[in-house]
Amino acid sequence: MTPDTEAKISESFASQSLMQTLGATLQSIKAGRVEIAAPILESSKQQHGFAHAGLTFSIGDSAAGYAALSTLPADHEVLTTEMKINLLAPGKGERLIARGRVIKPGRRLIVVQSDVFALHDGVETHIALMTGTMLPITPE
Amino acid sequence: MTPDTEAKISESFASQSLMQTLGATLQSIKAGRVEIAAPILESSKQQHGFAHAGLTFSIGDSAAGYAALSTLPADHEVLTTEMKINLLAPGKGERLIARGRVIKPGRRLIVVQSDVFALHDGVETHIALMTGTMLPITPE
Amino acid sequence: MTPDTEAKISESFASQSLMQTLGATLQSIKAGRVEIAAPILESSKQQHGFAHAGLTFSIGDSAAGYAALSTLPADHEVLTTEMKINLLAPGKGERLIARGRVIKPGRRLIVVQSDVFALHDGVETHIALMTGTMLPITPE
Amino acid sequence: MTPDTEAKISESFASQSLMQTLGATLQSIKAGRVEIAAPILESSKQQHGFAHAGLTFSIGDSAAGYAALSTLPADHEVLTTEMKINLLAPGKGERLIARGRVIKPGRRLIVVQSDVFALHDGVETHIALMTGTMLPITPE
Repeated sequence: MTPDTEAKISESFASQSLMQTLGATLQSIKAGRVEIAAPILESSKQQHGFAHAGLTFSIGDSAAGYAALSTLPADHEVLTTEMKINLLAPGKGERLIARGRVIKPGRRLIVVQSDVFALHDGVETHIALMTGTMLPITPE
Repeated sequence: MTPDTEAKISESFASQSLMQTLGATLQSIKAGRVEIAAPILESSKQQHGFAHAGLTFSIGDSAAGYAALSTLPADHEVLTTEMKINLLAPGKGERLIARGRVIKPGRRLIVVQSDVFALHDGVETHIALMTGTMLPITPE
Repeated sequence: MTPDTEAKISESFASQSLMQTLGATLQSIKAGRVEIAAPILESSKQQHGFAHAGLTFSIGDSAAGYAALSTLPADHEVLTTEMKINLLAPGKGERLIARGRVIKPGRRLIVVQSDVFALHDGVETHIALMTGTMLPITPE
Repeated sequence: MTPDTEAKISESFASQSLMQTLGATLQSIKAGRVEIAAPILESSKQQHGFAHAGLTFSIGDSAAGYAALSTLPADHEVLTTEMKINLLAPGKGERLIARGRVIKPGRRLIVVQSDVFALHDGVETHIALMTGTMLPITPE
């Protein structure tokens, strides 16, 4: 991963207004691995007071997408074409952490996985397993 | 569907703070079919200015979940156990509309589908196909 | 769809040895829609005597793939990149019928759906809902 | 896992006629982990001479299902409710190996993952990532 790619990921993340609305932050960028965290805000909950699955999905999808982008030249983009989420436990606690990684890099398609954890009193619980496909977009 | 179930769905929706954050509204509740809409707010976008996939997922998942709930007695709940989204087109326009429906009702599991559309200058474009499984929760 | 495409689909189907092993037959080819059927052979069962999910998946995936291929020029191929199956009911009866169709055609990716039915004493039961993504392969 | 559970898995596997048709064998049973292998028979191929995705799915789904069953008392059963497969590479070689494991055990639902590999000239290639949900069936 070049410094250009890293700068580009930070810039792209900063321009996603939903990530700001959710309070999400980019925690780390490595080649093929990206971590995003978000507090479980009062404004991000479902009807029982836990993190909404929409929050879990949003940061898990972004972490996976940027993990894919980290394997491409700095002038490329990626689009999520499909993503499946299996919810394993309620999003209970103060904070969610999504760890995305590339399972299979590629020129035409990149297969990715994200694991999302809830942090509660210092203990991480695995709350979601996500697998999906990212489509690299080459500059014209 | 009893009036109790309908009232319960409206109340549950109102208590999901993420739905309010996203500006989502419950458009209609019928037996096995629920529609939820949301404007594409400045605060709900991805890096290219379109609706974030997290917004699409959030309202599609909720529409599917409430469609499942509409087939159950008023004292039940549902949980999403898994949901897959295939993204078909960018979320471009003023507003997203999610139409959830029950494919297979059940006592132990309910299989659901949601189709999400973007409304742009009065024209609806199909932007996402979602299929998932809801788990009915019986009161103890 | 050109006659060339139709001939090519029949030929490709005939060259899939697993389809012959399962006794599957190509029932109809229309633009964007393909139907494949298979008897529930003694050799295609799971431990309770019903159709094995592997049989259901195999014909559902093939029906979806050929539905995608029917939308492309005759010199193209398709590959399944991902496919999700929700099983709705046991595969009980004499015969399975898979109906594949294109949800979203495309040059880079084609989103498809298959519905699989079990035929028992003349009655069709919906046993599986499948959604997936096909990758068109252009001749070099 | 009790010896009863292990015996029950072997017996159940032996009674799946499709597994015999595909030449599949149960390679190992551990608590929460099951391995199934199958040769790429002349009768299990797709149109380009590689392993059919139906073969990959069949052994991956069975490995995941038995991994789930290994975490339950010997009088229980499991049913696949949903399974997604991401295909990573062609099934090229002499043999496929599916390794199923439990991601999240449970009384109501068990989330599983299977990784399928193709063995070619002694080298394993990761050809499929599968995630799914198994439904435990309690004896009445």
